[in-house]
Amino acid sequence: MSGAIPAARYADRLARTAAAARAAGVRALLIGVGPELEWLTGYDAKALERLTLLVVPSDGDATIVAPRLEVAAAEAAAAIGAGAVRVRPWQESEDPYEHVWETLPDVPGARLAVSDTLRASFLLRLQATYPHAAFEVAGPVIGALRRIKDADEIELLRAAAGAADRTIMGLAAGRLVGRTEADVAAEVRARLVDEGHDTASFWIVASGPRSASPHHDPDDRPIVGGEPLLLDIGGRRAGYSSDITRTLWVTGGDPAKGPDDGFRGIFGLVRDANAAGRAAVRPGVAAQDVDRAARAVIDAAGHGAAFFHRTGHGIGLEGHEDPYIVEGNSQPLEVGDAFSVEPGIYLEGRYGVRIEDIVVCAEHGADVLNQVTREPLIVSGT
Amino acid sequence: MSGAIPAARYADRLARTAAAARAAGVRALLIGVGPELEWLTGYDAKALERLTLLVVPSDGDATIVAPRLEVAAAEAAAAIGAGAVRVRPWQESEDPYEHVWETLPDVPGARLAVSDTLRASFLLRLQATYPHAAFEVAGPVIGALRRIKDADEIELLRAAAGAADRTIMGLAAGRLVGRTEADVAAEVRARLVDEGHDTASFWIVASGPRSASPHHDPDDRPIVGGEPLLLDIGGRRAGYSSDITRTLWVTGGDPAKGPDDGFRGIFGLVRDANAAGRAAVRPGVAAQDVDRAARAVIDAAGHGAAFFHRTGHGIGLEGHEDPYIVEGNSQPLEVGDAFSVEPGIYLEGRYGVRIEDIVVCAEHGADVLNQVTREPLIVSGT
Repeated sequence: MSGAIPAARYADRLARTAAAARAAGVRALLIGVGPELEWLTGYDAKALERLTLLVVPSDGDATIVAPRLEVAAAEAAAAIGAGAVRVRPWQESEDPYEHVWETLPDVPGARLAVSDTLRASFLLRLQATYPHAAFEVAGPVIGALRRIKDADEIELLRAAAGAADRTIMGLAAGRLVGRTEADVAAEVRARLVDEGHDTASFWIVASGPRSASPHHDPDDRPIVGGEPLLLDIGGRRAGYSSDITRTLWVTGGDPAKGPDDGFRGIFGLVRDANAAGRAAVRPGVAAQDVDRAARAVIDAAGHGAAFFHRTGHGIGLEGHEDPYIVEGNSQPLEVGDAFSVEPGIYLEGRYGVRIEDIVVCAEHGADVLNQVTREPLIVSGT
Repeated sequence: MSGAIPAARYADRLARTAAAARAAGVRALLIGVGPELEWLTGYDAKALERLTLLVVPSDGDATIVAPRLEVAAAEAAAAIGAGAVRVRPWQESEDPYEHVWETLPDVPGARLAVSDTLRASFLLRLQATYPHAAFEVAGPVIGALRRIKDADEIELLRAAAGAADRTIMGLAAGRLVGRTEADVAAEVRARLVDEGHDTASFWIVASGPRSASPHHDPDDRPIVGGEPLLLDIGGRRAGYSSDITRTLWVTGGDPAKGPDDGFRGIFGLVRDANAAGRAAVRPGVAAQDVDRAARAVIDAAGHGAAFFHRTGHGIGLEGHEDPYIVEGNSQPLEVGDAFSVEPGIYLEGRYGVRIEDIVVCAEHGADVLNQVTREPLIVSGT
C-alpha cells in the first residue's frame, strides 16, 4: 500500500527503532499487525485471529513470525521482500508462540514492549510464554520516531487530503435535500474510493440537531432545507489517512431558509478558533498551546463548555496517533508532525459546528493540507 | 448497524453472559470496542485510542465507561438507549481507569476476562489498575453464546451473502482483460457498497500465478486472457459479514485460451472437496470432521500438501470467529453455527483454486447461503 516509500527506508527505520529500544533498556519490540508493522516493514497486513508478530530485538535482526498462508503477502512488502526481515512461517497445526520463543529466548526480568494495538488475546499468550518478562507498550519507543513524517509521507498525506477535499466539494455541489443521512454517507464512501482511497474509514453525516453530537452515526433521518449538515469524513489512500470536517448550511433553494444569527455566530467563532489553532503551530510550541489558542477564542465568547473535546490528533498511517493536541500534552511540536486542528461548538437540541483541517508543522509554521474554504458553505442542496 | 435485532434481545444476551461468567467463576467481563460489544449492546463503536469499556459483572448491572464525546453515539445503540446498560462518561482531562475502578472495585484474586480484541495498551493499563486480579480472555465465556446465530442473525448473514453473490456475478459478466488487479479490486469495493454493504473488508483479486498465493494483495499486474482469476471478497452489511471465493477462468474471448487440463483437474477436486465439506455438516458432527471430509478428497488425489490451510472459519459480526473448521477442533457443531467451507489447491508458480461458501448448520444439514454456481466460471472478460 505504501508504494511511494522506498525499500531502503524501512531498513533504516528498523535500525533506528532497535537503537531506540537499546537506549530505552527494552530488550525487544513485539509488533502485531497494525500501523507500527506497516511503518517498519511496509506490510499492511489484515488483522486476523492468526498470530503475525514482528520481533525486533534491540541487538539483532528482525524476524516476522507469520502464518504459512500469509507468507507470500508478507514477502510482497518492501522490507520483507528485500530481506531486511527474516520470515518464520508457522503451519496451521503448530503453536506460533513456540516460534516466537525460538526467535527470542527468555531472559528473566527483560522488558518487552508490545505494539499498542496488539490484541489482548495475543498479549495474554505472550505473557504466559515469557512469565519472567515485564511487558509494556511500544508507543514510547517507536512513537517518537513514527510521529515525524518525512517528505514522502507528507506528500502522501497531501494527496489523501486533496481527495477528501474533492469529496467534500462534490457533496456540497450535489443534491442533499430529501435524502437520508445514510444515503449521503454511502455517497461519501463511494466518492472517497473514486478519489483513490483504499478504504473509507468514517462518514459522519449529521443533519440539523444531530450536528450537536460530535460522532453521530448517520441514520434514516431525511435532510431538509433550513438546517446545518456536518460532514466529517476520511479514510486511507496509499496507506496514509485523510480526515476533514466542514459544516454546511442547506437552504433547500429557499432564500428565507438561510442560517440564523445563532448559527452564524458559532460558525464564526469556530472558524476563528480553527485559524487561531493553525496560527499557533510552529516548531518548539507545546502541543497543548495549539489547543489553548483555539480554545481561547471559544472560551472568550462564553461557549467553552460547548467545546468539550480536544483540538486535534496526530495523523499518518493511523487516523489518530501522536501527537494529541490536548491540554496536558507539553511535548514541543517538531518539523514533520502532522495533526488535525478541529475545534467545535455543540449546542444540544439545536446544532453544532466543527471545522477541521490537517496541518503539518513546518519551519515557518503550519503547512495546511486541506484547501476547502473555511467560510460558510451555504448550499441549496437541491 | 444491527437494526434488525430487537432491543429486548440485547438485555437477554447481557443476562445470559453474566450467568455464563458466574458459572465459569469469572467476576466480570471487560469488553472493549469490537464484536463482543456490538453483540451485547448493539453498539458498533469505532476503535479509538480513547477507552470505551463495557463492564459486565457476574452479579450486577452492566456499565459502559465511554468518552464524553461518544456518549450520544453510545446511547443510540439499542441496549444502551433502552437503559439495559448504565453510561458513565469520562471527560478528556480525566483518567478513564478511575471510572472503571469505581464501577468495579478490586477484589484480590478475582478472575477478570477481557474481550479478545481489546488493545494491548488498554489491557496493560487494566492490569496495573487491578494488580491482584488474574486476567484471561472472554472468548470461552461469551464465544459459546455468540457462536449460535438466531433466526434474525441468519437472515442478516443471508442478505450479506446475497449481496456478495451479486458482486461476484457482476464482476464475472464485466470487462477484466487489460485491467489491473487493483482496478478490479476497486470495483469490488464499489459494488459491495452499492449492494448495501457498510464496508468492504477484503478484496483479493489474484490473477494468473498470483492465484497460488491464498491471500494475495492486488497490485498493478494486468489481467490477460488464458489464465485464472481468483476473487475472495467480503465485508459487512447491517453489521453481519459476507465472504465468498470463486475462481474464474478468463479467456479474453479466444476459444483457444480456455482452461488447461491441469486447471480443470484441480478445479474439479476443489469443487468436490467443497461439496464434501458442505455435505458433512450436521448437528453433533465435530468441526474437524468437516475439515477432514473436504481434505480427504484433495488428499486422495495426491494434492494434500497444496491445501495448506484449514477448511473454514466461523462468521457473524466478525469475518472470522468461532467455530474454526480445522483439525484439532473436536467441538460438535450446533444448529445456528455459521461458517465458511473453503478448500483450495495452490500450485506455486502456476495457479491456484479456492471455492468458498458460507453455510449455517441446520437440523437437516447445511443451509448454504451463497448461490453462485460452483461449476467452472469461464468468462471472456472482454
